[in-house]
Amino acid sequence: MPEHNSTRHDRDGVARAALLLLDEVGLADLSMRRIAGALDVQPSALYWHFASKQELLAELADRITATMPRADADVLTTARGIRDALFTYRDGAELVLSTSALRLGSSPAQTALESALRRHGADDPENRAAALLHFVLGHATLVQQRMHADSHGATIGDGVHDITAGLDRVFDLGVTALAGTPVADDEVSELPTPRRDRA
Amino acid sequence: MPEHNSTRHDRDGVARAALLLLDEVGLADLSMRRIAGALDVQPSALYWHFASKQELLAELADRITATMPRADADVLTTARGIRDALFTYRDGAELVLSTSALRLGSSPAQTALESALRRHGADDPENRAAALLHFVLGHATLVQQRMHADSHGATIGDGVHDITAGLDRVFDLGVTALAGTPVADDEVSELPTPRRDRA
Repeated sequence: MPEHNSTRHDRDGVARAALLLLDEVGLADLSMRRIAGALDVQPSALYWHFASKQELLAELADRITATMPRADADVLTTARGIRDALFTYRDGAELVLSTSALRLGSSPAQTALESALRRHGADDPENRAAALLHFVLGHATLVQQRMHADSHGATIGDGVHDITAGLDRVFDLGVTALAGTPVADDEVSELPTPRRDRA
Repeated sequence: MPEHNSTRHDRDGVARAALLLLDEVGLADLSMRRIAGALDVQPSALYWHFASKQELLAELADRITATMPRADADVLTTARGIRDALFTYRDGAELVLSTSALRLGSSPAQTALESALRRHGADDPENRAAALLHFVLGHATLVQQRMHADSHGATIGDGVHDITAGLDRVFDLGVTALAGTPVADDEVSELPTPRRDRA
């Protein structure tokens, strides 16, 4: 099947294989060697498409956060859309956090938040978008790691039944405060996010 | 020197050795095996003091964040104190983030933030403290990873000279917004934090 093989060898094929592998093994075990193994090529073949592992991870981060809400969405909807996109892949939040640390320019997620903040009429939208992104990434990484640990029985604590109880409220409160102007109460609890199913 | 050896074998000695090793090798390489090697004991000896690696990491997290500001400090001072404590150890922010994910109860850092928020007169101080902690952890992890990557030439981007430019402003803006009431402008830029030297 030469056609199948050549398809897997383009840049898109490498990124798709890496995302599948991420879901299977997690970020800590996502090595260039394993990605190459999944494609049945030598690791050196990957560097024809991506100059470094960092560049490949940046591509994965952009794909993970590509599922954006409508371009005219409000700040809370945009932030929830980014959070839910991070939950779509195993270790998605941690991967996007690490990639954001390496990227000196603005990411698609930060640009979406900044646009929503400008429509919202927030002051200092650029710095505010960065703060919002840091909050969303910190929150989502913590929630995702907690859910993963719980599914492996590794949480430490008082035996509370619902380990993510109250975290939706913390998220909405944080986003609303960082957006800089009040959001109506009914809007805050408008969208129940079924995120436990996805992470 | 039997006295020296027995000192290293108590719970405090294990935690100290683990913190030293964290600074040397980073969180990804901080295995029970390496900690045991640093103490010249078998890995099984560590489990006499800590039931699991998670429990040991939780102890390290509490030690890292133990350098708290005064108990009557305001919200911004408290948040800066936690951030700066995270920067004191290599991967300190990532370690405390991971540990917070596993811990179902309140951490010392979150308790300090909640107290400061109560003195501040903020509404819903418990959820607000959680949101603030998620922001501080997301921000500090990103900044610390960026500084580490930059020192290894691994940042991707536009060649901006000061890679942490503007990040203090983002931090102060985020904390101030999450605290829920305005902080005077001169207070926001009061403490220039020399964090680049420490991370």
